[in-house]
Amino acid sequence: MRSSSLSAVCCLLPYPVDVSLIDLAKSGDRRSLARLVSRVEDDTVEGREALAALYPDGGAAWVTGVTGAPGAGKSTLVDGLVGFAADQGNVAVVAIDPSSPFSGGAVLGDRIRMQRHTDDPRIYIRSMANRGHLGGLADSTPRVVALLDGIGFSEVLIETVGVGQAEIDVASSADTVIVTVNPGWGDSIQAAKAGLLEIGDVFVVNKADRPDVDETVTELLRMLDVGPDRAWRPPIVTTVATDGTGLDELWSAILDHRRYLTETGELEGRRRERASREIEAAVRTGLRRRASLDPGGVELLERVATREIDPWSAAGTIIESM
Amino acid sequence: MRSSSLSAVCCLLPYPVDVSLIDLAKSGDRRSLARLVSRVEDDTVEGREALAALYPDGGAAWVTGVTGAPGAGKSTLVDGLVGFAADQGNVAVVAIDPSSPFSGGAVLGDRIRMQRHTDDPRIYIRSMANRGHLGGLADSTPRVVALLDGIGFSEVLIETVGVGQAEIDVASSADTVIVTVNPGWGDSIQAAKAGLLEIGDVFVVNKADRPDVDETVTELLRMLDVGPDRAWRPPIVTTVATDGTGLDELWSAILDHRRYLTETGELEGRRRERASREIEAAVRTGLRRRASLDPGGVELLERVATREIDPWSAAGTIIESM
Repeated sequence: MRSSSLSAVCCLLPYPVDVSLIDLAKSGDRRSLARLVSRVEDDTVEGREALAALYPDGGAAWVTGVTGAPGAGKSTLVDGLVGFAADQGNVAVVAIDPSSPFSGGAVLGDRIRMQRHTDDPRIYIRSMANRGHLGGLADSTPRVVALLDGIGFSEVLIETVGVGQAEIDVASSADTVIVTVNPGWGDSIQAAKAGLLEIGDVFVVNKADRPDVDETVTELLRMLDVGPDRAWRPPIVTTVATDGTGLDELWSAILDHRRYLTETGELEGRRRERASREIEAAVRTGLRRRASLDPGGVELLERVATREIDPWSAAGTIIESM
Repeated sequence: MRSSSLSAVCCLLPYPVDVSLIDLAKSGDRRSLARLVSRVEDDTVEGREALAALYPDGGAAWVTGVTGAPGAGKSTLVDGLVGFAADQGNVAVVAIDPSSPFSGGAVLGDRIRMQRHTDDPRIYIRSMANRGHLGGLADSTPRVVALLDGIGFSEVLIETVGVGQAEIDVASSADTVIVTVNPGWGDSIQAAKAGLLEIGDVFVVNKADRPDVDETVTELLRMLDVGPDRAWRPPIVTTVATDGTGLDELWSAILDHRRYLTETGELEGRRRERASREIEAAVRTGLRRRASLDPGGVELLERVATREIDPWSAAGTIIESM
């Protein structure tokens, strides 16, 4: 009710629509927020202006990424964490996994369970599962997160599958990265092979009502011990997300990691590095668009593949065309 | 003797120096080849011209990458493989590991052992260990490999440490990637965490005269079995590179992989993908140079870090400056 009456007001206001959209979104109007997010996702001029206007207000949100293989129980974990996060402030959930109940995937029972959050004014859930290929998601997710931060959400949870470089990049851009595995030998190895052991700040062995939990924890510990020492030693938490077991411990581990990052000053370095990577990625995307690499690029690639020209001359041609 | 008399001839020839340099290098003059390689490494205009001229002649070389943690015995393996490769044609070794005996690192005994190849006219050894930071190496190694290919080497062996993304990129650009581990639990886990399990076509458990070889092989097999099936199932070979044990089996495994890639047509796809990545990397490098990102970039990053502007506006500024 509240949102529709507010958006009716919007068109009577004397100041520019975008300012009112931002103000309305800040005041809690979900429809205005959804429109803003769409503009940012689509990278429209209005979306860019909104981001530029809101970025100086941001930086207060804590971004938690939850990743792991499909079926590891990430959505149920996020669903549980939302409750804890909502005690700290407004919560935004960005779901990228197409099979997530938040994204309309998964079985109906799960979807209904998640939907109880939809009516909570402190909680905003955005599915990005259908925004095209993963590369596009990796491009737009950080922008959407920055928008939600600037709007005033103090907790942002990203749910993303830990498969593929683009998704790993998304996950590792969070302040705290939760890596989810299940009991059993192969899962933690798969996580290692996917590069998840390197990015996890907190590890969760979910579905801990299944056999082999202790072996999985031991194995994770041993694998984490291999390699150079890190100042932060990632804790391993066992959970049964479906009945809430272990979620309080997981939330404590997340808060411990926050305290660690904040007190050591590592948070600033981490965010600075994230900004640097984001600028570089945006330059790449922008240039790819400007050069419209696809038509000329494919033809050039063909000429390189047939050894008519070398890759470095091809690159020179592309750069000159920009 | 041969090389110095040829390079004396070079200056009396009536045609442009670079053509004669290429011809001299092709005819086996190592000093001319070394000069060409340096130009390509330094990315000079002459180096680019040489590459452009030679690229159409290339494609025949088989590129084998040998990677693994420092101390795994890669240099000794490469040293052994050079003998087998020399039976197939001229061999070029590109050593990137700073601790490699090929690069002048390691103990004197090792260096002397490797140096027996230096006098073999079929073998050319190039150390790139002192060419600056790894990013630069990752940039220049593919160009050097393309040069050696165009010059007529039918076997190119790259020795590179499997630590860090840049080195993983170098290793994975080979036709056949050999991942070297040692017996013991941590080593294969470390390889998994470093992403080496994903790029290996042949696995070597070197120093197989040490304990726990069977356990290491079993563990590698189990780890390789996790995840999606691949058409090529990487074999695991045990070697004692210092006394030559298992090297014939390793060479057979390499030849098996060649046959597999060639007969399935996967080689073409793999090389096309390599060309595509190479073009993209060269565009990035070229643009970074053109925008001279460092002065303006650092200042922009500072403004983003203090939230004065957002990363995407910063990227726009950089793109406009190009």
